[in-house]
Amino acid sequence: MRHFVEELDYLRSRLLEMSALVEDSVYRSVLSLSQKDPQQAQKVLQNEAEINRMEIEIDDQAVRLLALQQPMATDLRLLTAAIKINNDLERMGDLAVNIVERALSLIYQPPVKPLIDIPQMAKLVESMVRRSLDSFVKRDAELSRAVLLSDDAVDELRDAIYRELIAFMERDSRTVSRAIDLIFVARNLERIADHATNIAEDVLYLVQGVDVRHHAEARGSIT
Amino acid sequence: MRHFVEELDYLRSRLLEMSALVEDSVYRSVLSLSQKDPQQAQKVLQNEAEINRMEIEIDDQAVRLLALQQPMATDLRLLTAAIKINNDLERMGDLAVNIVERALSLIYQPPVKPLIDIPQMAKLVESMVRRSLDSFVKRDAELSRAVLLSDDAVDELRDAIYRELIAFMERDSRTVSRAIDLIFVARNLERIADHATNIAEDVLYLVQGVDVRHHAEARGSIT
Repeated sequence: MRHFVEELDYLRSRLLEMSALVEDSVYRSVLSLSQKDPQQAQKVLQNEAEINRMEIEIDDQAVRLLALQQPMATDLRLLTAAIKINNDLERMGDLAVNIVERALSLIYQPPVKPLIDIPQMAKLVESMVRRSLDSFVKRDAELSRAVLLSDDAVDELRDAIYRELIAFMERDSRTVSRAIDLIFVARNLERIADHATNIAEDVLYLVQGVDVRHHAEARGSIT
Repeated sequence: MRHFVEELDYLRSRLLEMSALVEDSVYRSVLSLSQKDPQQAQKVLQNEAEINRMEIEIDDQAVRLLALQQPMATDLRLLTAAIKINNDLERMGDLAVNIVERALSLIYQPPVKPLIDIPQMAKLVESMVRRSLDSFVKRDAELSRAVLLSDDAVDELRDAIYRELIAFMERDSRTVSRAIDLIFVARNLERIADHATNIAEDVLYLVQGVDVRHHAEARGSIT
């Protein structure tokens, strides 16, 4: 068996690989929609299968390290954070699949409107996924805080998208079903951002011992 | 410090209390909508604050037990399951708050339609929350499987609700904004059911060592 420190490094690098797959899935899920390309959707489904395999492997490894190594306080906190982050990443993979399901329904219908804001929202969400994992691997509290700030921007984008789509539906009832699909795409992107936020909060707790869960006022630069 | 077995019992009983609060929140969130009663909504917000406090307390206790007691395989699996279940319950509390936000917007508007199917869906979801935790405390695999079956029924109810609401919107554009609020209520109920399903899957893994995550075919009686 490898040395404990190496095992922890391996765990971190696997989580980073998993986050790269999630980021790729977010990108391709919205690309499948904007380019009307079912092959991108197919790739997201393949990613999800791989993400699911990784989740089980990482979870097993983290629990095994807990059991065999009886780690001290700091490493223990790292392992429990890894278990939670692993779970968040796996959920993000599922959410990208939800987007793809909507995309596959929309691909074969005329567009409600040109897609500009949803790809923009997706880009921001991808960067939150990447930065939340970077902040974990580098133990970078500043980067975690930046992720928390981006979450507010995502919520604003989502509100704007909802408002616009509701106006479309009210104006032309033939758009209702397609506009609802787009609302769910935005909703799933927002939920992916929420998971990235969870990760950033876990990292802040890990690095600074500050518990920012449920305490927005304790987020420091966030007001 | 109490004996380890007592500590585990205490952890289980706290999770059970937390699930009772979640169940109460699901019930009241839909009641606030069907009875147009903002006081029920208020109670859900109070529950959420208490649920959040309990989550942090239970998480700290579970991690402390992991650290101090260096538990063997079975107890270790129990503790990691407790950490995940705790997290699922906390998310359910948030989702009930999401429902309340929609309810508070709908209370002051004329109803789109009589509410029958959403309260029915809520009732099923409440029972899933209760049974998933019961299956954890009693280590009852049969009960866990019953929760997985109920999740399919919840998905069918959600589809029926969506179809009906989309028809309303297409027929009368003045209902769009309210119907979307109701769609999100159903969506949040479905997500609460998904978390109960996660818990049931964790219990199956705990009790039988069968990993049913991502493997519907391994769920036994589920096809």
